[in-house]
Amino acid sequence: MEAPLAARSGFPWLVGASQLVGLTAVVLTGVWMGIYRGGFAWDGSAREFNVHPLCMVLGLVFLQGDAILVYRVFRNEAKRNVKMLHGVIHLMALVISIIGIVAVFDNHRQAKYPHMYTLHSWCGMATMVFFCIQWVLGLMFFVFPVASSWLRASYLPIHGFCGTMMLVTAIGTSLLGITENLLFNIMPTYSQLPPEGVLANVLGILLVLFGVLLCYLITRDEYRRPPNPEEEALSVHFKTLTEEGSPTTP
Amino acid sequence: MEAPLAARSGFPWLVGASQLVGLTAVVLTGVWMGIYRGGFAWDGSAREFNVHPLCMVLGLVFLQGDAILVYRVFRNEAKRNVKMLHGVIHLMALVISIIGIVAVFDNHRQAKYPHMYTLHSWCGMATMVFFCIQWVLGLMFFVFPVASSWLRASYLPIHGFCGTMMLVTAIGTSLLGITENLLFNIMPTYSQLPPEGVLANVLGILLVLFGVLLCYLITRDEYRRPPNPEEEALSVHFKTLTEEGSPTTP
Repeated sequence: MEAPLAARSGFPWLVGASQLVGLTAVVLTGVWMGIYRGGFAWDGSAREFNVHPLCMVLGLVFLQGDAILVYRVFRNEAKRNVKMLHGVIHLMALVISIIGIVAVFDNHRQAKYPHMYTLHSWCGMATMVFFCIQWVLGLMFFVFPVASSWLRASYLPIHGFCGTMMLVTAIGTSLLGITENLLFNIMPTYSQLPPEGVLANVLGILLVLFGVLLCYLITRDEYRRPPNPEEEALSVHFKTLTEEGSPTTP
Repeated sequence: MEAPLAARSGFPWLVGASQLVGLTAVVLTGVWMGIYRGGFAWDGSAREFNVHPLCMVLGLVFLQGDAILVYRVFRNEAKRNVKMLHGVIHLMALVISIIGIVAVFDNHRQAKYPHMYTLHSWCGMATMVFFCIQWVLGLMFFVFPVASSWLRASYLPIHGFCGTMMLVTAIGTSLLGITENLLFNIMPTYSQLPPEGVLANVLGILLVLFGVLLCYLITRDEYRRPPNPEEEALSVHFKTLTEEGSPTTP
């Protein structure tokens, strides 16, 4: 059953706000790295490092958030198409964040900075590893018919919960990265709140706001996809076909 | 209807794990400040600052988390008692975190450090302000009969969502505080991962784990308090009494 229209009246505004906030965060990250930190390159220098924050905010925050959101925005479209869109946006998020990870490791290697000692790097690496595992499991469970219907149904809420948690830890890790970057680069002047400090702090607050909006849109019952008995019957039938090997099995 | 017993079999283990992780985080914060940062005092020095992390992790993370958790742990006890416990633990969290805030402002004032310029301070202040507002609104809506039944019912899911978000932002802010503290104090040696650096990083990971466990326990449907028609009837009757001023009003 669809939730009453009145209960969903805020939905388009909240989705719009989340996109505005999320895109502004991506643009601010680009402006910060592009203008205040010297721009972008792929030469092992600090300018290669600058690729890292942009890729992570775009991939692991904005695109990961939007990949989850498609189930709410397109909740009346055919589930198969929405699932594909969810997977494809997550694939984009995965590729972009891997580029971001390579950028920082390459920069650290060439500048002879030690790897993986900060809390930011520990949280970030944990998030990336779980993100990769979740992507592969999602593909196996929900795209390729590997798991039984029972296993799919059991894994679905865990998949959703872990996805939301990863979005939150990606945002938390971004905030740690912002703080590290400011303290490594502008510690002597940060306390006078120069434009770069204000911009980075505002970026952090926008990322928190993006997370809160996404969590609200994801967790409210009335924004969920209404259960569709026809789709579920088809899905079970599909499972029956693949499990039993015969379309005539009851 | 209670969820089937099998669906709740993991519940005591998860609650136990959350308490173990949460208490370990509080103890590690005490050990870090007590042993590596020179201990505690109330004299405006860095030792007064050390009161801040301990109070915030104890109050705004551990106690705030446990205040939410009482609704799951005592889901078969009388709602009035559980509500009181929820309010009292939150009051303790509020008082302890105000002491923590006073400690850092007092230390900054005496050491002539500027106030409120870091992302940590912005996120922390926002969390504290919302926490105070939420506590007062909770008191008005759910303890004193100020709001109508309809208003109470409408506010309840928002109260729950905001509470979970505040727990998450409190944890995120703690991680920012850990990173700041390490970079301000041990930046030259942090990359060699000295014991203090490892301890603080592990503390950060434990806080994330506490948050994930709490979010899981809070959001799983089968761990929720089962609706109790008797209690609801009583609650509505109580509202009728206070709103209409006469117990005989239909």
